[in-house]
Amino acid sequence: MGFDGSEGNGLFADLYELTMLRAFGECGMNGEAVFSLFVRHMPDDRNLLIACGLDEVLAEIERFRFSPDDIDYLRSLGMFPERFLDGLRQFRFTGDVFAMPEGTPFFPDEPILEVAAPIGEGQMIETLVLNQIGLQTLLASKAQRFVGAASGRQVADFGARRAQGFDAALKGARAFAIAGVSGTSLLAAGARYGIPVTGTMAHSFVEAFSSEAEALAAMMRIYPRTVLLVDTYDSLQGVRNVVDLAQNLGSDCRLTGIRLDSGDLDALSRGARAMLDEAGLAHLKIVASGGLTEARIETLVRAGAPIDIFGVGTEMSVSADAPFLDIVYKLTEYAGAGRMKLSSLKSTMPGRKQVYRQEIDGVAVQDVIACANEACAGTPLLQQVMRRGARLNSTPAGLSDIRDQAARLIGEMPAELRALAPAGRAYPVVVSDSLRSETQALRARLVSGMAAC
Amino acid sequence: MGFDGSEGNGLFADLYELTMLRAFGECGMNGEAVFSLFVRHMPDDRNLLIACGLDEVLAEIERFRFSPDDIDYLRSLGMFPERFLDGLRQFRFTGDVFAMPEGTPFFPDEPILEVAAPIGEGQMIETLVLNQIGLQTLLASKAQRFVGAASGRQVADFGARRAQGFDAALKGARAFAIAGVSGTSLLAAGARYGIPVTGTMAHSFVEAFSSEAEALAAMMRIYPRTVLLVDTYDSLQGVRNVVDLAQNLGSDCRLTGIRLDSGDLDALSRGARAMLDEAGLAHLKIVASGGLTEARIETLVRAGAPIDIFGVGTEMSVSADAPFLDIVYKLTEYAGAGRMKLSSLKSTMPGRKQVYRQEIDGVAVQDVIACANEACAGTPLLQQVMRRGARLNSTPAGLSDIRDQAARLIGEMPAELRALAPAGRAYPVVVSDSLRSETQALRARLVSGMAAC
Repeated sequence: MGFDGSEGNGLFADLYELTMLRAFGECGMNGEAVFSLFVRHMPDDRNLLIACGLDEVLAEIERFRFSPDDIDYLRSLGMFPERFLDGLRQFRFTGDVFAMPEGTPFFPDEPILEVAAPIGEGQMIETLVLNQIGLQTLLASKAQRFVGAASGRQVADFGARRAQGFDAALKGARAFAIAGVSGTSLLAAGARYGIPVTGTMAHSFVEAFSSEAEALAAMMRIYPRTVLLVDTYDSLQGVRNVVDLAQNLGSDCRLTGIRLDSGDLDALSRGARAMLDEAGLAHLKIVASGGLTEARIETLVRAGAPIDIFGVGTEMSVSADAPFLDIVYKLTEYAGAGRMKLSSLKSTMPGRKQVYRQEIDGVAVQDVIACANEACAGTPLLQQVMRRGARLNSTPAGLSDIRDQAARLIGEMPAELRALAPAGRAYPVVVSDSLRSETQALRARLVSGMAAC
Repeated sequence: MGFDGSEGNGLFADLYELTMLRAFGECGMNGEAVFSLFVRHMPDDRNLLIACGLDEVLAEIERFRFSPDDIDYLRSLGMFPERFLDGLRQFRFTGDVFAMPEGTPFFPDEPILEVAAPIGEGQMIETLVLNQIGLQTLLASKAQRFVGAASGRQVADFGARRAQGFDAALKGARAFAIAGVSGTSLLAAGARYGIPVTGTMAHSFVEAFSSEAEALAAMMRIYPRTVLLVDTYDSLQGVRNVVDLAQNLGSDCRLTGIRLDSGDLDALSRGARAMLDEAGLAHLKIVASGGLTEARIETLVRAGAPIDIFGVGTEMSVSADAPFLDIVYKLTEYAGAGRMKLSSLKSTMPGRKQVYRQEIDGVAVQDVIACANEACAGTPLLQQVMRRGARLNSTPAGLSDIRDQAARLIGEMPAELRALAPAGRAYPVVVSDSLRSETQALRARLVSGMAAC
């Protein structure tokens, strides 16, 4: 099954990947290449990034292929000979993949995934890998800020309606869960990933009845353990209606909470809490939603607003303040020799690499980017996850395991990096001496080669 | 086939749509409701929005259903009785839909789509409709700015790798094409929508060879009508390499262009143009790419940079400066009576509506939002597109027809609204007297009803 329900996923690629695949083949260039996936710059207002999307990407790579319809389409372009098109039927990815586990905090220039494969194959999956790891890393990194700001209170994902498309809504829910978000409104994400689903009623439900009290009573009768939305007309009047209904039911009342979706959430949550407590409904939780940013959540939490669960939509779902990562997938080695682009400061470091995280007393203090075969102090972050096109761990860790591990890894980062405010200093990421001298040697070789042109 | 390749698409919904569907049913509330889709506020740096995504949404609504697996998942939640789950097997959308044609420019508060359906059904498709129309309208609106800034030069979509997921890349390519973008790098979009595909080679191709000249020669030999990438090491040296290769081939040379992907695109394009022209290669086109914004394109065009095609990625693909729309889907009528929410300034206008666009000498001067049954001067923008669950036009207009119509409709807007700079004044959108008095009457009725609580 392909990325959009079609039979193959091979067309989730840019045309140039196909033109290069053929050209490499016709030039007899089937040597092994290394491609490295990394982020070039930290977005403004981020202190760290959270690697995410590996599981989905490995699944897509394992099933990467061209269906007969895909090949018919490619034939229609009139650019490819029949022999090449015929070969595409058998196309499979046969390379190795090394990657940081999902949920690992990382920094610019650090490879989070490396592919070692025949060059045409490694090139072929470029767009797929960038798109999926880029999206999920973007969203997990944003969600970490919401979870941090909520400071132990729950964050729920209400963002499917504002996410950028079906795939972003679905994969986003998973990325949020890995970063510590506790539930999602999106049924498809619940079904696919086992994330707890949440949600009860919209304003339209209340509006369709002749009074708010009638609508709330109906909802309580049908779903005794529900959360009632109280802000359709007047939030505190809505709370009074809830109190009346609960008191009428007495000990039969199973209600679990109320939701505020507009207005001054600090003042309204305090007003609602006081009314509920006074009515003996101290166990009812208060859910707040409505355009929440991580900064707003932090302000509410610090002010002591009695909100138990934050329902978050748009701002988290599109990573509104930084809606993309400067993420790239670069050739760093071919046929045993390092490769790099020289133009415009966008140079890369050659070869396969490893990232070592060094800690003191359980707190990360420095990362070292080193050559893959170099021994360094610290914990190596990149692990082999695919060998000759097959995943090494055929039963990947469940979502809750990934989430627990992510919480541990994030918890090991310095506190100032986990905060919303810009950290006073960038986390130290250094390049090992060996890798630095290899980079310089390659650059010198390329520059002198150009001078000889 | 569902939205993600699964059998049904019914789970692309928020849980609360299901809980309300059941609750409406158990309360015997099967009356007709009207839901209205509109944008509440214009994003900063936008003068107009372009409606997009209707065709995909109608297709999803027509096939909206719950598969046996979907129903098993819903059963597992323990919230729904067997009778309700059983009924879901037959769930189909049976309502009517009215909408602005794709490519129509529109403004905040104007309904771009209205649903008239039994209330539970109309509620059920909320998340699906918001997600899809929201994404595609967002991206078409952004792309119009790029196309306008390019001022007749071509814009190509290179953004699949940075789009927020598979669906955004695919639907984005379509939205861009409707707004006037001429091609896409994404093969899947070419296959699905017939959009011309574009692309030739990456830096990695050049880097894998022992010299740039060798790589370019190989590409020209395999694809005679290609565009060569010249900036891997030094852009103007790259152009010299192209000139040498072309001159060696002489009249056999079929090369179509070169691509610059970094550096000072203004200076480099002039340098490259001069070298190509001097070498008798005036017919070669210059493609420029690399982090282009619409403002940068406008600057390059105004400066007279000799660039023929702009390859655009990230900025357009995620609508980077405004990555979401404040788009909502609101109940405006139930069982023949208007409905609205009162809290927090977010009120809506009741009932089914129509938007009339009034023109003078072929230029739009004012829109009027009116009741659906009210006669007004101007061209009505909302048309019925679905009746009792079936599309009225079973063979929707092809993409090129939609694109031509969009160009005509955008061309009829005042020039200052089509420019990148903020327009001096907002385009006038007025509410008809009838609709205004109905809105006021409903508000008064709801407020007095609350006072009576």
